Amino acid sequence: MANSKSPEAIPVLVDRALQGDRRALSRLISRVENGGTEAWSALALIYPRTGRAQIVGVTGAPGTGKSTLVSEIAKYARRQHPEIAIGIVAVDPTSPFSGGAVLGDRIRMRDLAGDAGVFIRSMATRGSLGGLARATTDVVKVLDAAGFQLILIETVGAGQSEIDIARTAATVIVVEAPGLGDEVQAIKAGILEIADILVVNKADRDGVQSTVNALHTMLDLGKAPTSVLHHGRLLTIAAPPQVPAAERWRPPILKTIAAEGTGIAEVLDAVAQHRAYLSGHPEGQQRARVRAAIELETILREALLQQWLQRIGPVELNRAIEQVTARTIDPYSAAEQLLS
Amino acid sequence: MANSKSPEAIPVLVDRALQGDRRALSRLISRVENGGTEAWSALALIYPRTGRAQIVGVTGAPGTGKSTLVSEIAKYARRQHPEIAIGIVAVDPTSPFSGGAVLGDRIRMRDLAGDAGVFIRSMATRGSLGGLARATTDVVKVLDAAGFQLILIETVGAGQSEIDIARTAATVIVVEAPGLGDEVQAIKAGILEIADILVVNKADRDGVQSTVNALHTMLDLGKAPTSVLHHGRLLTIAAPPQVPAAERWRPPILKTIAAEGTGIAEVLDAVAQHRAYLSGHPEGQQRARVRAAIELETILREALLQQWLQRIGPVELNRAIEQVTARTIDPYSAAEQLLS
Repeated sequence: MANSKSPEAIPVLVDRALQGDRRALSRLISRVENGGTEAWSALALIYPRTGRAQIVGVTGAPGTGKSTLVSEIAKYARRQHPEIAIGIVAVDPTSPFSGGAVLGDRIRMRDLAGDAGVFIRSMATRGSLGGLARATTDVVKVLDAAGFQLILIETVGAGQSEIDIARTAATVIVVEAPGLGDEVQAIKAGILEIADILVVNKADRDGVQSTVNALHTMLDLGKAPTSVLHHGRLLTIAAPPQVPAAERWRPPILKTIAAEGTGIAEVLDAVAQHRAYLSGHPEGQQRARVRAAIELETILREALLQQWLQRIGPVELNRAIEQVTARTIDPYSAAEQLLS
Repeated sequence: MANSKSPEAIPVLVDRALQGDRRALSRLISRVENGGTEAWSALALIYPRTGRAQIVGVTGAPGTGKSTLVSEIAKYARRQHPEIAIGIVAVDPTSPFSGGAVLGDRIRMRDLAGDAGVFIRSMATRGSLGGLARATTDVVKVLDAAGFQLILIETVGAGQSEIDIARTAATVIVVEAPGLGDEVQAIKAGILEIADILVVNKADRDGVQSTVNALHTMLDLGKAPTSVLHHGRLLTIAAPPQVPAAERWRPPILKTIAAEGTGIAEVLDAVAQHRAYLSGHPEGQQRARVRAAIELETILREALLQQWLQRIGPVELNRAIEQVTARTIDPYSAAEQLLS
């Protein structure tokens, strides 16, 4: 959504955005979101300035209050360290950050939105087929390069792409709430594996201790977090060595009442501890390698399709689509013919 | 997870599965899920027998009771048409079909699981980076070929890949429930566009009429469902013509109490009406074309990466991953070097 009649050249826009021009930053993000060669050139330009931000994923089912938690983490961090700028990237379309808010939330977010040291971006309307994950990691990179030292990525904990996105963060906070019951099941079914910190929010509700206990039990039963290695083809070829279970970080289980700001300091302490753990432990290196491989794979997938689409003519492509639509050929054979 | 020591040849397995051998069907599905050339050959073999099933996506947030709705639809359809076999594919890891159930649900599912005319498959543990969508559509094809005439795909309505999957169905039911509030927001944020039928479940709860009214308002305000065309690169090259808004199907809004079996007949009527609409309207053809293009694109993306991985050596790939991990090169430039 660059609104000027002739859009700025990417190097000019990058320059302005990195110098702190927030409107340039917004426009740069939009151009990067759109993908393609323009995005690539922008990302190659900013890359030397990335890698400094602490990237924290916050994921959880609707109703756990994860948006409120994100908002309170941001406010607390700003109060403690006013010199640190914070970026918030909301991938959940139901998030208040994406406009899907009830009134109380909207008021809470307004405080934050009025803080010049906080930049909020919603990814609610992005496309699919891998586009969302690619766009989100790219937007995070732009914020990183622009000097945001803490970047919070909020994703709903229920979609595979959202789990992939959370995985791109150095530290993943999984948010629970008492009395939702089913959500503990959701964690069991896959999110637990990516949790570095477990937060039981709405801890003033009945049943908080049983939720905490259930999470402890699940951690005890938890399988080794190897599944990250099963995602992505590149890693099946170039898998890093496993860290032995005994040496691995055990996610702390923290209680918060985000709406009252209770327990936020402890969450940020745990984030700092996790960061320290990763920097001094082979797992930190291993994770960086997995992230690099996933990122490379995402880029390669997109690039390979782009290259191929440039070679293939629209006529041939249209004919194949027509044939598959008419069921005169199966899509696998059609793809084989197109590729040969 | 074919468990025999020497797995059956694919043509043998396909033969048995299509002749009604349920254990062979399960094994075939596992082999197809795993992807690769074996899956392709199986899918090419079964393709001539696909295209007959009615494929219905059922999507909605946790708490709307969509699993119960799926289960009741299946039971009702089985009672009305005992000759019709029904397949259920659950993509939601929190679904009772995937084992993430509370006790009441589990009992409800048990009835269904005991019915030889119903085949239930959970996709809860599938991989990522497009793998889930690919695997789900492939499993649906196997069920279609094996003679299941009604296939229900249950997805949680909160993830982009899940929306993609729902889109592969001919008819998409979006499930709401009163008193969740936020979920109407979720619909607003993207799911409404893919809804062919809106169901307000738990209609014995307070607030049912305001949920229905909110949905009517949203339908009135609703933008043209063009966004389907923005997903996928192939369609930007080979986009089908748009159907004028006035001629388009308006999703009916139905009330159900799935846990009591109330309103299920009306849902199945609406599914039949939607099917009739699609078969007599250009939109049916247009949708088939969009589905074909998305499917072709998914296959091409995977195949292009596979082809490329076979050409590239693990040494070169590992070196690129190391360099990106060490941040001595940005992933875009690394990809460019790998591709050149």
